[in-house]
Amino acid sequence: MLSGSFEELKQGLKKLPGIGEKTATRLAMYLIRMERKDAETIGEAIIKAVNSYSNCPVCNILTDTEPCVFCQDTQREQQILCVVEDTQDAYLIEDTHEFKGRYFILGNLLSPMDGIGLDEINYPLLQDFLAANPVEELILAISPSVEGESTINFLVNQLADNVKTITRLSTGLPFGGDMEYATSRTLTTAFKRRYSAYK
Amino acid sequence: MLSGSFEELKQGLKKLPGIGEKTATRLAMYLIRMERKDAETIGEAIIKAVNSYSNCPVCNILTDTEPCVFCQDTQREQQILCVVEDTQDAYLIEDTHEFKGRYFILGNLLSPMDGIGLDEINYPLLQDFLAANPVEELILAISPSVEGESTINFLVNQLADNVKTITRLSTGLPFGGDMEYATSRTLTTAFKRRYSAYK
Repeated sequence: MLSGSFEELKQGLKKLPGIGEKTATRLAMYLIRMERKDAETIGEAIIKAVNSYSNCPVCNILTDTEPCVFCQDTQREQQILCVVEDTQDAYLIEDTHEFKGRYFILGNLLSPMDGIGLDEINYPLLQDFLAANPVEELILAISPSVEGESTINFLVNQLADNVKTITRLSTGLPFGGDMEYATSRTLTTAFKRRYSAYK
Repeated sequence: MLSGSFEELKQGLKKLPGIGEKTATRLAMYLIRMERKDAETIGEAIIKAVNSYSNCPVCNILTDTEPCVFCQDTQREQQILCVVEDTQDAYLIEDTHEFKGRYFILGNLLSPMDGIGLDEINYPLLQDFLAANPVEELILAISPSVEGESTINFLVNQLADNVKTITRLSTGLPFGGDMEYATSRTLTTAFKRRYSAYK
Protein backbone atom coordinates (compact mmCIF):
# COMPACT_ATOMS: atom_id res chain seq x y z
CA MET A 1 0.00 0.00 0.00
CA LEU A 2 3.03 2.23 0.49
CA SER A 3 3.84 1.88 -3.16
CA GLY A 4 4.78 4.20 -5.98
CA SER A 5 7.46 6.68 -5.07
CA PHE A 6 8.00 5.12 -1.63
CA GLU A 7 8.77 1.74 -3.15
CA GLU A 8 11.07 3.29 -5.75
CA LEU A 9 12.96 5.08 -3.00
CA LYS A 10 13.26 1.89 -0.99
CA GLN A 11 14.60 -0.05 -3.97
CA GLY A 12 17.11 2.71 -4.60
CA LEU A 13 18.36 2.73 -1.01
CA LYS A 14 18.74 -1.06 -1.06
CA LYS A 15 21.47 -0.66 -3.68
CA LEU A 16 23.69 0.94 -1.05
CA PRO A 17 26.14 -1.22 0.91
CA GLY A 18 24.91 -2.62 4.22
CA ILE A 19 21.32 -1.52 3.58
CA GLY A 20 18.83 -4.37 3.44
CA GLU A 21 15.04 -4.51 3.35
CA LYS A 22 14.47 -3.34 6.93
CA THR A 23 16.98 -0.49 6.96
CA ALA A 24 15.78 0.69 3.55
CA THR A 25 12.19 0.78 4.82
CA ARG A 26 13.22 2.65 7.95
CA LEU A 27 15.32 5.20 6.04
CA ALA A 28 12.66 5.73 3.37
CA MET A 29 10.05 6.21 6.08
CA TYR A 30 12.30 8.72 7.80
CA LEU A 31 12.98 10.57 4.55
CA ILE A 32 9.30 11.01 3.67
CA ARG A 33 8.64 12.23 7.23
CA MET A 34 11.52 14.73 7.15
CA GLU A 35 11.19 18.44 6.51
CA ARG A 36 10.67 18.55 2.74
CA LYS A 37 13.56 20.95 2.28
CA ASP A 38 16.04 18.81 4.23
CA ALA A 39 15.17 15.65 2.29
CA GLU A 40 15.41 17.50 -1.01
CA THR A 41 18.84 18.78 0.03
CA ILE A 42 20.03 15.19 0.52
CA GLY A 43 18.60 14.10 -2.83
CA GLU A 44 20.23 17.03 -4.59
CA ALA A 45 23.53 16.44 -2.78
CA ILE A 46 23.66 12.89 -4.18
CA ILE A 47 23.00 14.09 -7.71
CA LYS A 48 25.53 16.91 -7.40
CA ALA A 49 28.25 14.73 -5.85
CA VAL A 50 28.00 11.87 -8.34
CA ASN A 51 28.26 14.44 -11.13
CA SER A 52 31.22 16.25 -9.56
CA TYR A 53 33.47 13.27 -8.92
CA SER A 54 35.31 11.15 -11.43
CA ASN A 55 38.52 9.15 -11.50
CA CYS A 56 41.80 11.00 -11.86
CA PRO A 57 43.22 10.04 -15.28
CA VAL A 58 46.71 9.75 -13.75
CA CYS A 59 46.31 7.95 -10.40
CA ASN A 60 42.65 6.83 -10.57
CA ILE A 61 41.61 8.47 -7.29
CA LEU A 62 38.07 9.89 -7.07
CA THR A 63 38.41 13.62 -7.47
CA ASP A 64 36.42 16.74 -8.24
CA THR A 65 39.45 18.40 -9.87
CA GLU A 66 41.48 17.16 -12.84
CA PRO A 67 44.13 16.13 -12.21
CA CYS A 68 43.56 15.39 -8.53
CA VAL A 69 45.06 17.39 -5.68
CA PHE A 70 47.77 14.75 -5.17
CA CYS A 71 48.87 14.70 -8.81
CA GLN A 72 48.84 18.53 -8.89
CA ASP A 73 50.95 18.90 -5.77
CA THR A 74 54.60 19.12 -6.77
CA GLN A 75 55.58 19.38 -3.09
CA ARG A 76 54.78 15.72 -2.52
CA GLU A 77 57.65 13.22 -2.76
CA GLN A 78 57.63 12.03 -6.36
CA GLN A 79 59.87 8.98 -5.95
CA ILE A 80 57.57 7.05 -3.59
CA LEU A 81 54.20 5.64 -4.62
CA CYS A 82 51.58 4.10 -2.37
CA VAL A 83 49.26 1.64 -4.11
CA VAL A 84 45.86 1.19 -2.43
CA GLU A 85 42.61 -0.56 -3.25
CA ASP A 86 40.32 2.45 -3.15
CA THR A 87 40.08 6.20 -2.59
CA GLN A 88 38.98 5.83 1.00
CA ASP A 89 42.17 3.89 1.81
CA ALA A 90 44.27 6.79 0.49
CA TYR A 91 42.47 9.19 2.83
CA LEU A 92 42.91 6.81 5.75
CA ILE A 93 46.65 6.83 5.07
CA GLU A 94 46.64 10.63 4.72
CA ASP A 95 45.11 10.79 8.19
CA THR A 96 48.12 8.96 9.66
CA HIS A 97 50.42 11.80 8.44
CA GLU A 98 53.05 9.10 7.83
CA PHE A 99 53.24 9.49 4.08
CA LYS A 100 54.05 12.42 1.81
CA GLY A 101 54.35 10.64 -1.54
CA ARG A 102 51.81 9.96 -4.27
CA TYR A 103 49.00 7.43 -4.49
CA PHE A 104 47.72 5.02 -7.08
CA ILE A 105 44.21 3.58 -6.71
CA LEU A 106 43.70 0.07 -8.08
CA GLY A 107 39.90 0.27 -7.73
CA ASN A 108 39.68 -3.49 -7.13
CA LEU A 109 41.72 -6.45 -5.95
CA LEU A 110 42.51 -9.36 -8.27
CA SER A 111 39.85 -12.06 -8.20
CA PRO A 112 39.83 -14.02 -11.44
CA MET A 113 36.89 -16.16 -10.22
CA ASP A 114 34.78 -12.97 -10.08
CA GLY A 115 36.05 -11.76 -13.43
CA ILE A 116 38.32 -9.16 -11.84
CA GLY A 117 41.52 -9.20 -13.82
CA LEU A 118 44.27 -6.82 -14.88
CA ASP A 119 41.99 -4.22 -16.48
CA GLU A 120 39.72 -4.12 -13.43
CA ILE A 121 42.66 -3.41 -11.10
CA ASN A 122 43.80 -0.75 -13.59
CA TYR A 123 47.17 -2.41 -14.06
CA PRO A 124 47.64 -0.81 -17.53
CA LEU A 125 47.14 2.64 -15.95
CA LEU A 126 49.63 1.75 -13.20
CA GLN A 127 52.18 0.78 -15.87
CA ASP A 128 51.60 4.13 -17.60
CA PHE A 129 52.02 5.91 -14.26
CA LEU A 130 55.33 4.17 -13.53
CA ALA A 131 56.61 4.75 -17.07
CA ALA A 132 55.92 8.48 -16.74
CA ASN A 133 56.93 8.72 -13.07
CA PRO A 134 59.62 6.17 -12.16
CA VAL A 135 59.76 5.60 -8.40
CA GLU A 136 62.30 4.32 -5.90
CA GLU A 137 59.79 2.69 -3.60
CA LEU A 138 56.41 1.15 -4.19
CA ILE A 139 54.37 0.66 -1.02
CA LEU A 140 51.61 -1.91 -1.47
CA ALA A 141 49.15 -0.71 1.19
CA ILE A 142 46.70 -3.50 0.46
CA SER A 143 44.65 -5.55 2.93
CA PRO A 144 46.14 -8.99 3.68
CA SER A 145 42.96 -10.76 2.48
CA VAL A 146 42.93 -13.61 -0.05
CA GLU A 147 42.40 -11.19 -2.94
CA GLY A 148 44.83 -8.71 -1.39
CA GLU A 149 47.59 -11.33 -1.17
CA SER A 150 47.00 -12.37 -4.80
CA THR A 151 47.22 -8.75 -5.86
CA ILE A 152 50.38 -8.17 -3.82
CA ASN A 153 52.00 -11.29 -5.28
CA PHE A 154 51.06 -10.31 -8.81
CA LEU A 155 52.40 -6.76 -8.47
CA VAL A 156 55.64 -7.92 -6.84
CA ASN A 157 56.24 -10.44 -9.63
CA GLN A 158 55.49 -7.96 -12.40
CA LEU A 159 57.27 -4.92 -11.03
CA ALA A 160 60.28 -6.33 -9.18
CA ASP A 161 62.56 -5.60 -12.14
CA ASN A 162 61.43 -1.99 -12.53
CA VAL A 163 61.27 -0.75 -8.97
CA LYS A 164 64.16 -0.77 -6.49
CA THR A 165 62.12 -1.37 -3.36
CA ILE A 166 58.64 -2.85 -3.05
CA THR A 167 57.19 -2.95 0.46
CA ARG A 168 53.91 -3.97 2.06
CA LEU A 169 52.31 -2.88 5.33
CA SER A 170 53.32 -4.72 8.50
CA THR A 171 51.14 -7.68 9.46
CA GLY A 172 50.61 -8.81 13.05
CA LEU A 173 48.36 -8.35 16.03
CA PRO A 174 46.15 -5.28 15.91
CA PHE A 175 46.57 -2.79 18.78
CA GLY A 176 43.68 -3.04 21.20
CA GLY A 177 42.83 -6.52 19.96
CA ASP A 178 42.89 -9.61 22.13
CA MET A 179 45.37 -12.27 21.11
CA GLU A 180 42.86 -15.08 21.54
CA TYR A 181 40.78 -13.60 18.70
CA ALA A 182 43.69 -13.51 16.26
CA THR A 183 43.66 -16.14 13.52
CA SER A 184 46.37 -18.74 13.54
CA ARG A 185 47.93 -17.15 10.47
CA THR A 186 48.03 -13.71 12.08
CA LEU A 187 49.59 -15.15 15.21
CA THR A 188 52.13 -17.18 13.24
CA THR A 189 53.15 -14.10 11.28
CA ALA A 190 53.20 -11.95 14.40
CA PHE A 191 55.47 -14.47 16.10
CA LYS A 192 57.85 -14.69 13.15
CA ARG A 193 57.96 -10.92 12.73
CA ARG A 194 58.53 -10.18 16.43
CA TYR A 195 60.69 -7.12 17.12
CA SER A 196 62.69 -5.67 19.98
CA ALA A 197 60.46 -4.42 22.76
CA TYR A 198 63.11 -1.87 23.85
CA LYS A 199 63.12 1.29 21.86
CA MET B 1 40.64 17.18 0.39
CA LEU B 2 37.42 15.35 -0.39
CA SER B 3 35.48 18.53 0.16
CA GLY B 4 32.79 20.48 -1.65
CA SER B 5 29.97 18.32 -2.89
CA PHE B 6 31.32 15.22 -1.14
CA GLU B 7 31.26 16.96 2.23
CA GLU B 8 27.76 18.32 1.58
CA LEU B 9 26.55 14.83 0.73
CA LYS B 10 28.13 13.41 3.89
CA GLN B 11 26.53 16.06 6.08
CA GLY B 12 23.17 15.32 4.46
CA LEU B 13 23.45 11.58 5.03
CA LYS B 14 24.39 12.13 8.68
CA LYS B 15 20.92 13.56 9.25
CA LEU B 16 19.45 10.10 8.70
CA PRO B 17 18.80 7.83 11.70
CA GLY B 18 21.60 5.42 12.62
CA ILE B 19 24.06 7.05 10.23
CA GLY B 20 27.14 8.50 11.91
CA GLU B 21 30.41 9.88 10.60
CA LYS B 22 31.86 6.55 9.42
CA THR B 23 28.74 5.19 7.73
CA ALA B 24 28.08 8.55 6.08
CA THR B 25 31.62 8.57 4.67
CA ARG B 26 31.26 5.01 3.44
CA LEU B 27 27.87 5.65 1.81
CA ALA B 28 28.98 8.92 0.23
CA MET B 29 32.09 7.20 -1.13
CA TYR B 30 29.93 4.42 -2.53
CA LEU B 31 27.49 6.90 -4.09
CA ILE B 32 30.18 8.87 -5.91
CA ARG B 33 31.66 5.60 -7.18
CA MET B 34 28.29 4.28 -8.42
CA GLU B 35 27.08 4.36 -11.99
CA ARG B 36 26.10 8.00 -12.39
CA LYS B 37 22.60 7.04 -13.53
CA ASP B 38 21.93 4.75 -10.53
CA ALA B 39 23.04 7.38 -8.03
CA GLU B 40 20.95 10.03 -9.74
CA THR B 41 17.96 7.70 -9.58
CA ILE B 42 18.35 7.46 -5.80
CA GLY B 43 18.67 11.22 -5.44
CA GLU B 44 15.62 11.79 -7.60
CA ALA B 45 13.66 9.10 -5.73
CA ILE B 46 14.22 10.95 -2.45
CA ILE B 47 13.03 14.23 -3.93
CA LYS B 48 10.03 12.59 -5.58
CA ALA B 49 9.01 10.62 -2.49
CA VAL B 50 9.23 13.49 -0.03
CA ASN B 51 7.08 15.53 -2.39
CA SER B 52 4.53 12.72 -2.94
CA TYR B 53 3.82 11.83 0.68
CA SER B 54 1.94 13.86 3.23
CA ASN B 55 -0.21 13.12 6.27
CA CYS B 56 -3.79 11.96 5.71
CA PRO B 57 -6.04 14.77 7.02
CA VAL B 58 -8.35 12.18 8.59
CA CYS B 59 -6.13 9.54 10.22
CA ASN B 60 -2.69 11.19 9.95
CA ILE B 61 -1.01 8.27 8.16
CA LEU B 62 1.67 9.07 5.57
CA THR B 63 0.01 8.68 2.19
CA ASP B 64 0.42 9.58 -1.44
CA THR B 65 -3.35 9.72 -1.96
CA GLU B 66 -5.86 11.94 -0.16
CA PRO B 67 -7.58 10.60 1.77
CA CYS B 68 -5.40 7.56 2.36
CA VAL B 69 -6.21 4.04 1.14
CA PHE B 70 -7.51 3.06 4.58
CA CYS B 71 -9.87 6.02 4.93
CA GLN B 72 -11.09 5.47 1.34
CA ASP B 73 -11.80 1.77 1.86
CA THR B 74 -15.44 1.36 2.93
CA GLN B 75 -14.93 -2.42 3.17
CA ARG B 76 -12.85 -2.03 6.31
CA GLU B 77 -14.62 -2.39 9.66
CA GLN B 78 -15.61 1.13 10.64
CA GLN B 79 -16.41 0.47 14.29
CA ILE B 80 -12.90 -0.55 15.35
CA LEU B 81 -9.95 1.82 15.41
CA CYS B 82 -6.31 0.93 15.98
CA VAL B 83 -4.18 3.78 17.38
CA VAL B 84 -0.45 3.52 16.64
CA GLU B 85 2.59 5.70 17.07
CA ASP B 86 3.64 5.92 13.43
CA THR B 87 2.86 4.86 9.88
CA GLN B 88 5.33 2.01 9.94
CA ASP B 89 3.51 0.46 12.93
CA ALA B 90 0.26 0.44 10.95
CA TYR B 91 1.95 -1.48 8.15
CA LEU B 92 3.49 -3.93 10.62
CA ILE B 93 -0.02 -4.65 11.93
CA GLU B 94 -1.36 -4.95 8.36
CA ASP B 95 1.27 -7.62 7.78
CA THR B 96 -0.18 -9.74 10.62
CA HIS B 97 -3.55 -9.93 8.77
CA GLU B 98 -5.21 -9.84 12.23
CA PHE B 99 -6.96 -6.52 11.80
CA LYS B 100 -9.48 -5.21 9.29
CA GLY B 101 -10.48 -1.91 10.93
CA ARG B 102 -9.13 1.60 10.55
CA TYR B 103 -5.96 3.25 11.87
CA PHE B 104 -5.09 6.47 13.57
CA ILE B 105 -1.46 7.63 13.67
CA LEU B 106 -0.41 9.67 16.70
CA GLY B 107 2.90 10.66 15.16
CA ASN B 108 4.54 10.81 18.60
CA LEU B 109 4.20 9.51 22.15
CA LEU B 110 3.53 11.86 25.07
CA SER B 111 6.72 13.18 26.62
CA PRO B 112 6.10 16.50 28.36
CA MET B 113 9.79 16.77 29.31
CA ASP B 114 10.64 16.85 25.59
CA GLY B 115 7.86 19.27 24.81
CA ILE B 116 5.68 16.58 23.25
CA GLY B 117 2.15 17.28 24.38
CA LEU B 118 -1.38 16.87 23.08
CA ASP B 119 -0.86 18.72 19.81
CA GLU B 120 2.26 16.72 19.01
CA ILE B 121 0.41 13.42 19.47
CA ASN B 122 -2.41 14.84 17.32
CA TYR B 123 -4.98 14.37 20.05
CA PRO B 124 -7.25 17.12 18.64
CA LEU B 125 -7.32 15.26 15.30
CA LEU B 126 -8.10 11.99 17.11
CA GLN B 127 -11.04 13.73 18.83
CA ASP B 128 -12.29 14.94 15.43
CA PHE B 129 -11.90 11.41 14.05
CA LEU B 130 -13.92 9.88 16.88
CA ALA B 131 -16.59 12.58 16.69
CA ALA B 132 -17.05 11.90 12.97
CA ASN B 133 -16.57 8.11 13.23
CA PRO B 134 -17.72 6.76 16.60
CA VAL B 135 -16.21 3.34 17.32
CA GLU B 136 -17.03 0.36 19.52
CA GLU B 137 -13.43 -0.59 20.22
CA LEU B 138 -10.26 1.41 20.39
CA ILE B 139 -7.08 -0.69 20.23
CA LEU B 140 -4.06 1.13 21.62
CA ALA B 141 -1.28 -0.65 19.71
CA ILE B 142 1.43 1.35 21.40
CA SER B 143 4.82 0.14 22.68
CA PRO B 144 4.94 -0.48 26.43
CA SER B 145 7.78 2.03 26.89
CA VAL B 146 7.73 4.86 29.45
CA GLU B 147 6.29 7.30 26.90
CA GLY B 148 4.00 4.60 25.53
CA GLU B 149 2.53 3.87 28.97
CA SER B 150 1.95 7.60 29.61
CA THR B 151 0.20 7.88 26.28
CA ILE B 152 -1.93 4.79 26.93
CA ASN B 153 -2.91 6.09 30.38
CA PHE B 154 -3.78 9.50 29.01
CA LEU B 155 -5.91 8.12 26.19
CA VAL B 156 -7.72 5.65 28.48
CA ASN B 157 -8.55 8.44 30.97
CA GLN B 158 -9.75 10.85 28.29
CA LEU B 159 -11.72 8.45 26.14
CA ALA B 160 -13.16 5.91 28.60
CA ASP B 161 -16.52 7.70 28.63
CA ASN B 162 -16.84 7.86 24.84
CA VAL B 163 -15.69 4.42 23.75
CA LYS B 164 -17.22 1.13 24.89
CA THR B 165 -14.04 -0.94 24.82
CA ILE B 166 -10.45 0.26 24.97
CA THR B 167 -7.80 -2.45 24.65
CA ARG B 168 -4.03 -2.58 24.49
CA LEU B 169 -1.70 -5.21 23.02
CA SER B 170 -0.77 -8.16 25.21
CA THR B 171 2.40 -7.78 27.24
CA GLY B 172 4.61 -10.69 28.28
CA LEU B 173 7.57 -12.75 27.15
CA PRO B 174 8.46 -12.38 23.48
CA PHE B 175 8.41 -15.61 21.43
CA GLY B 176 11.93 -16.78 20.72
CA GLY B 177 13.27 -14.74 23.62
CA ASP B 178 15.04 -16.24 26.60
CA MET B 179 13.33 -15.69 29.95
CA GLU B 180 16.56 -14.74 31.67
CA TYR B 181 16.82 -11.68 29.43
CA ALA B 182 13.33 -10.44 30.27
CA THR B 183 13.14 -7.44 32.59
CA SER B 184 11.62 -7.94 36.01
CA ARG B 185 8.60 -5.93 34.96
CA THR B 186 8.03 -8.05 31.86
CA LEU B 187 8.36 -11.22 33.90
CA THR B 188 6.02 -9.94 36.62
CA THR B 189 3.41 -9.02 34.04
CA ALA B 190 3.89 -12.29 32.18
CA PHE B 191 3.38 -14.20 35.43
CA LYS B 192 0.24 -12.26 36.34
CA ARG B 193 -1.19 -12.57 32.85
CA ARG B 194 -0.50 -16.31 32.55
CA TYR B 195 -3.09 -18.22 30.52
CA SER B 196 -4.18 -21.81 30.03
CA ALA B 197 -1.61 -23.85 28.19
CA TYR B 198 -4.30 -26.24 26.90
CA LYS B 199 -6.11 -24.98 23.87
